[in-house]
Amino acid sequence: MSVLAEIAVFPMDKGGSVSPWVARVLAVIQESGLPYQLGPMGTTVEGERAEVMQVADRCLAALEEDCDRVYMTLKVDLRKGPSGRMAGKVASVQAKLRAD
Amino acid sequence: MSVLAEIAVFPMDKGGSVSPWVARVLAVIQESGLPYQLGPMGTTVEGERAEVMQVADRCLAALEEDCDRVYMTLKVDLRKGPSGRMAGKVASVQAKLRAD
Amino acid sequence: MSVLAEIAVFPMDKGGSVSPWVARVLAVIQESGLPYQLGPMGTTVEGERAEVMQVADRCLAALEEDCDRVYMTLKVDLRKGPSGRMAGKVASVQAKLRAD
Amino acid sequence: MSVLAEIAVFPMDKGGSVSPWVARVLAVIQESGLPYQLGPMGTTVEGERAEVMQVADRCLAALEEDCDRVYMTLKVDLRKGPSGRMAGKVASVQAKLRAD
Repeated sequence: MSVLAEIAVFPMDKGGSVSPWVARVLAVIQESGLPYQLGPMGTTVEGERAEVMQVADRCLAALEEDCDRVYMTLKVDLRKGPSGRMAGKVASVQAKLRAD
Repeated sequence: MSVLAEIAVFPMDKGGSVSPWVARVLAVIQESGLPYQLGPMGTTVEGERAEVMQVADRCLAALEEDCDRVYMTLKVDLRKGPSGRMAGKVASVQAKLRAD
Repeated sequence: MSVLAEIAVFPMDKGGSVSPWVARVLAVIQESGLPYQLGPMGTTVEGERAEVMQVADRCLAALEEDCDRVYMTLKVDLRKGPSGRMAGKVASVQAKLRAD
Repeated sequence: MSVLAEIAVFPMDKGGSVSPWVARVLAVIQESGLPYQLGPMGTTVEGERAEVMQVADRCLAALEEDCDRVYMTLKVDLRKGPSGRMAGKVASVQAKLRAD
């Protein structure tokens, strides 16, 4: 079983520059010990289903402390089979692109 | 504290007609006892933060039983203050629309 | 062909109360003449593919005028066959729920 | 003006292995000439507002040819100011993480 979840979470009430809060969210993700990949529109983690959902919940909780309004988008891709898909998905698409 | 979460979850390996699985997900949401609203692109629930995240996790778990690949998108809007925002947000937008 | 698109768009630099901007976005959607449904986490429109994507673009443009940072999430469900799915999808799920 | 858009699009009626279609979508993105970054849960492009929305529309069109049902999620982050944010956003978060 492999569950990939892309987490994007930020405060809505702190103005247009949100990187200090995104850094706090990334620290929560790092503390989870799960493999992750930081991207321009969200951070993807890989783990067991309940595990990644708890990490997403802790990200929300970390902003709830001092933000009055918080927005999160989460995309989840659950697949039976081996883990290690974070790099594998990208490699698979690139291989098919070269094969055309 | 009010947390609204819009849950959209379906199998990717069962063909293009997914309403039986969406019905199963809705049953999970109903069992939670949280207020919810079914829409054309997802179901919105309202509750405490940890509560709504656990409902989203149970929705995934319900499809994991007999689906090999499952996709979920979750949008969360957390706001300090009273609950009962599911109807309130829509009413607030409509009132501002009329006022223009 | 039926394309459903759920549009959620708001400024990130105007504080936590965004309903005046959401009302402006809804006015843009109404001007399109497409059928729509306002929900607690986004507004769903139905139309041809290019049409709904242009409406989403105009929603962004409407906030770009006086907002420095704007966030949008868009979920699209494209399906070959007849239109009129906005109500149909919900009815189909409810019918399967009752049948169990 | 810089508009980042993360595009994730796949068929719902072709089974659980969708990388051939994701490769086709990536080819469409490459043909646009816009800078892009392929990630495990979507591909992010950067450009002008109308430009990135048209690329998203062409991605949908490329799957519409031979798929009966297609799902897309799009996240857009529009910000006034210079472009080149695809790498900049990640660097800004990492700098704040180190500074704590």
